[in-house]
Amino acid sequence: MAHIVSAFDEDLVQVQARISEMGGLCEELLAKALQSVQDRDTALAREVIDRDRALDGMEMALEEMVVKIIALRQPVAADLRVLIAAMKISSTLERIGDLAKNIAKRVGAVGQTATPRNLSHSIDSMAGLVLTQVNSVIDHYVARDPEALKALRADDEKIDIQYTSVFRELLTYMMEDPRNITACTHLLFCAENAYYVMTGQLLPANRPKVDETAAMSAA
Amino acid sequence: MAHIVSAFDEDLVQVQARISEMGGLCEELLAKALQSVQDRDTALAREVIDRDRALDGMEMALEEMVVKIIALRQPVAADLRVLIAAMKISSTLERIGDLAKNIAKRVGAVGQTATPRNLSHSIDSMAGLVLTQVNSVIDHYVARDPEALKALRADDEKIDIQYTSVFRELLTYMMEDPRNITACTHLLFCAENAYYVMTGQLLPANRPKVDETAAMSAA
Repeated sequence: MAHIVSAFDEDLVQVQARISEMGGLCEELLAKALQSVQDRDTALAREVIDRDRALDGMEMALEEMVVKIIALRQPVAADLRVLIAAMKISSTLERIGDLAKNIAKRVGAVGQTATPRNLSHSIDSMAGLVLTQVNSVIDHYVARDPEALKALRADDEKIDIQYTSVFRELLTYMMEDPRNITACTHLLFCAENAYYVMTGQLLPANRPKVDETAAMSAA
Repeated sequence: MAHIVSAFDEDLVQVQARISEMGGLCEELLAKALQSVQDRDTALAREVIDRDRALDGMEMALEEMVVKIIALRQPVAADLRVLIAAMKISSTLERIGDLAKNIAKRVGAVGQTATPRNLSHSIDSMAGLVLTQVNSVIDHYVARDPEALKALRADDEKIDIQYTSVFRELLTYMMEDPRNITACTHLLFCAENAYYVMTGQLLPANRPKVDETAAMSAA
């Protein structure tokens, strides 16, 4: 029995290592995707789009691994839950990769039309917050630190505020000049994707406040 | 051994029944969410938002059930994969519920500002296609008909075309009158959410074609 437990622990170390590797790639792709939009860097965007496939492969490989471990070790209770959780985290990381790819794919559309450069600062701030959060979540998961994970929740509000600010600025630019609309629409989708990465759910429509945006359009 | 196999089969029937139930609720919430946007029906939107919680609960219950079945029956190979697949489907259905809720939450923002009524036809067409697809996917899954599922892929293109059309129309309305921008932005997010439900991935930015939208903004 002691032998089986130890073999299972070794399996878990392997699973953890894979998650850690996926997390690292995820962070890199997201950082590069946001950078490619800021710099209108189509080569960097291309790299993100191509390398996202590796993340998809890693998710499939992790699922294979977990299925094999369950079949071989037949874990129950907490051990089984750890494996199920690992599979869910891997699937979330794969989705973050998809979002990064989606952001990167918009570089062409943003770059070809007039875009307000002044927005850069707001977008940079938001991107910085999101990246810090993603890095911290993965670090705390690998370090198995649930308290630190809870503490991160407090920073969610900062990202809400920053997202609302970007949303409002983009609407203003669209209203000022119709030629900005296409580019701003794509930037809006980029911002929403980045926001979604962090909150883990699609943008709640009550932020930015419905009243505020309605008031802006009437102004 | 025959007894164990049969007990497991009974477990599977239970799992399938739960998925079926979740699928039904999912379809209903999505249909009502799209309807609430079309009719600017805030009461219907409220219902969608409230009932999405039931779907979250159903996903958690299904995960509990699957973990118990694995621990009790210790299935391997194909049986284990069926359970893992059920958990993934349940998680996808829960996400569709989130998207429906996100659509419903935008009713207020859309309703308070001037919105082009002519758009209704395009949005109706797209909503109809998406709902038909979602219903068919769940039916074919429950009937265990992989060929029929593959055939559905062919209809994806219709949804692409419809989404591109809605996207273009919305951009045109935004360019015509800045007062339309806030409402159209929320409708755009609704359309993207509905599109995402069906394609199972975030909107690929190369559809609508980058060139087309860039040309529109220059025009």
